[in-house]
Amino acid sequence: MGIVVQKFGGSSVADAQKIRDCATHVLDAIRDGDRVVVVVSAMGDSTDDLLKLVSGVSARPDKRELDQLLATGELVSVALVAMTLQSLGQPARSLTGGQAGILTDDAFGRAGILNIDDRALLALLDAGIVPVVAGFQGVTAGGEVTTLGRGGSDTTAVALAAKLGARCEILKDVDGVYTADPRIVPGAQRLSTVTYDEMLEAAALGSQVIHPRAVELAKKFNDTLSVKHSHEPQRGGTLIVGESGSSTGRVVSSVVLKRGVCRVSIRGLADRAGIQSEVFQPLAMARVPIDDIIQEEDGPGTINLTFTLDKNDAAEASGVVHAVAGKIGVQAVRIDGGLATVSAVGSGMRYTPGVAARMFAALGDAGVRIENISTSEIRISIVVAEGDAQRTTACIHDAFGLNAPAPVTSPTIHVRADGMGTRPA
Amino acid sequence: MGIVVQKFGGSSVADAQKIRDCATHVLDAIRDGDRVVVVVSAMGDSTDDLLKLVSGVSARPDKRELDQLLATGELVSVALVAMTLQSLGQPARSLTGGQAGILTDDAFGRAGILNIDDRALLALLDAGIVPVVAGFQGVTAGGEVTTLGRGGSDTTAVALAAKLGARCEILKDVDGVYTADPRIVPGAQRLSTVTYDEMLEAAALGSQVIHPRAVELAKKFNDTLSVKHSHEPQRGGTLIVGESGSSTGRVVSSVVLKRGVCRVSIRGLADRAGIQSEVFQPLAMARVPIDDIIQEEDGPGTINLTFTLDKNDAAEASGVVHAVAGKIGVQAVRIDGGLATVSAVGSGMRYTPGVAARMFAALGDAGVRIENISTSEIRISIVVAEGDAQRTTACIHDAFGLNAPAPVTSPTIHVRADGMGTRPA
Repeated sequence: MGIVVQKFGGSSVADAQKIRDCATHVLDAIRDGDRVVVVVSAMGDSTDDLLKLVSGVSARPDKRELDQLLATGELVSVALVAMTLQSLGQPARSLTGGQAGILTDDAFGRAGILNIDDRALLALLDAGIVPVVAGFQGVTAGGEVTTLGRGGSDTTAVALAAKLGARCEILKDVDGVYTADPRIVPGAQRLSTVTYDEMLEAAALGSQVIHPRAVELAKKFNDTLSVKHSHEPQRGGTLIVGESGSSTGRVVSSVVLKRGVCRVSIRGLADRAGIQSEVFQPLAMARVPIDDIIQEEDGPGTINLTFTLDKNDAAEASGVVHAVAGKIGVQAVRIDGGLATVSAVGSGMRYTPGVAARMFAALGDAGVRIENISTSEIRISIVVAEGDAQRTTACIHDAFGLNAPAPVTSPTIHVRADGMGTRPA
Repeated sequence: MGIVVQKFGGSSVADAQKIRDCATHVLDAIRDGDRVVVVVSAMGDSTDDLLKLVSGVSARPDKRELDQLLATGELVSVALVAMTLQSLGQPARSLTGGQAGILTDDAFGRAGILNIDDRALLALLDAGIVPVVAGFQGVTAGGEVTTLGRGGSDTTAVALAAKLGARCEILKDVDGVYTADPRIVPGAQRLSTVTYDEMLEAAALGSQVIHPRAVELAKKFNDTLSVKHSHEPQRGGTLIVGESGSSTGRVVSSVVLKRGVCRVSIRGLADRAGIQSEVFQPLAMARVPIDDIIQEEDGPGTINLTFTLDKNDAAEASGVVHAVAGKIGVQAVRIDGGLATVSAVGSGMRYTPGVAARMFAALGDAGVRIENISTSEIRISIVVAEGDAQRTTACIHDAFGLNAPAPVTSPTIHVRADGMGTRPA
């Protein structure tokens, strides 16, 4: 009998009926012989509701108090999930992060897990009681309540799975990871497997399936991690595998679109050591997240720096960059909005030459104007006008043959005895 | 410098503006040289909202899970109050019941306080930080979250005051204890003092000013306890004093009306030892709270038992009583609704003969038909038709001269240096 950690997100527990559906899913796993640990996020929009209360009383709330407040959202949902399981005849007990033994540092708002004391969890499992753990939170050695930051419930689930040697299922209102957002590309296919690295790239590019911190942690501990639909698990799911599991057997596994991109170009920076730090350090201090960075030569002794960021951070970034530019002296600063980033992601790129060429040929045929290009080992991103975003995504998706169901090549495909799980369609 | 525990109820922290008013009140006390510990209830109707969520998932929720859930309401309000104090420049820190050192037994839903470890509170006070403690909750030795039951925030405040040797102020949306409900008797006067026993009688009769458990605790530890308006403390308030403090110098200090009363009469019960227990034990098992009990002789060897209860419990009580009556054999069971109880309460009754006579004379003049009478040492209650309730209350209020401002007789009246506090009007 294995242990499985099932994590239910906020929209999966948004009302009583959905909570009952989650409980049914837990009971199914128990019937299959698994021992289940449940991790739950706050219900629906309840975290946003709490933040609205804060905005009424304090413009700059203390981080410790914010954590004390936000941690209540998960406490509500764990108690309700435990009650629901009990009402269906299944012994269950809700646990705060602290009660579940999740010890963190005291970096309120983005605490890191230091250790997990799993004795309480194991005692409950041994007694046939389902532990229902509040995600997103822990406790310091001094008894202070902390939160792990947004998306932290995924991290809770993955960390518990690593500690318990358990499988981890992320249950959502989607049934897995797709080759593209089906709302943008109607022919998008569900992936039966995807690698940790592909998930990380996709998450960093704005795909909301699993939080990147959780994926990193799963990769580190080689957790068996999968994504399934919380109320229709029979629809399949996606298993996240290590590199050796090869993922889909395709060069490109998914195409990710991020809208609302803003580009900052600084021309004529002095080409000397440390000049990049003089630009990016102040942006980091202002907590402006940067997406891609491109550096090119400008003229003799000068360079151009171009980087993209979310349009919501554009005003903040503009202030910082203009201040920096005034101090160090540059030729010009230009800030463009109305852009989008489209990225092809695939672990197979590492071993396959000509991927970029194939992509650019398709885009050239379609007449898409490419504003910028940046690449990583397993990703090619281009910046295009936001108006071209959708057809660019569809064009790349088509160029790599992602509209057809995935071939069955992976040796690590996960098939459950009951035929559910992540068997490819 | 003294310590004062200020307890703010749910309606006093129902929105951001009200929370700011509470914070202002805390700052005033600090400016006066007090060290303040704040105790807060859940915001407005939030506890009822949580119970509504429960009713969606479970008909008979586990008491431990219910406590885990309900305790979140106070956690939200303490964090918001602490943030508000901070935003006004006052260092503050929110504390869960457990963080505040409130150790309870594990009687979930109605836990009793076993001990208070006040080291965390004292350390905060010494550092000039206002502790903002979640009312209504504690933690067991095993780390389980418990609640003290409805009205438990008053108990938290009184218990903390007793432990810290502090004064205790219950801050509400009324400015003190009145001779009668001003909505029923327009001439009702605020009492500057009232005895613990009068408060207990009034609370038991449905007056909602302070929870009776809290009053009992305050009496036991001889806490200095007062009731004030949370947002207009300058309006005065009421000080709750021991018997020696004599209260108002009046025989009757207040008249309390309880509507929605139901009366059960059982005629012809065998007059033998233990017969009362055979009736009331099953009612206690069914958790039906009984108000007044009257027993009188019926005929040779038989008695009549009459008792009152809330109409909301009438159906439950009817089932139990008819079952009991069928088993032990009685002459008749009669259940009447549409009644009200009006009670005159006053510690001075103990020493003053003729109080009942004065009351019945006034009621006789007014033509009020009295259905039943029951008395305690400091209370005379009558049952009347609900339609007569209001004029009965006004009549008794008038008969004891309560429409005039109270005479200043008490030697223990509490006057603060700033002229606020509970100085009589």
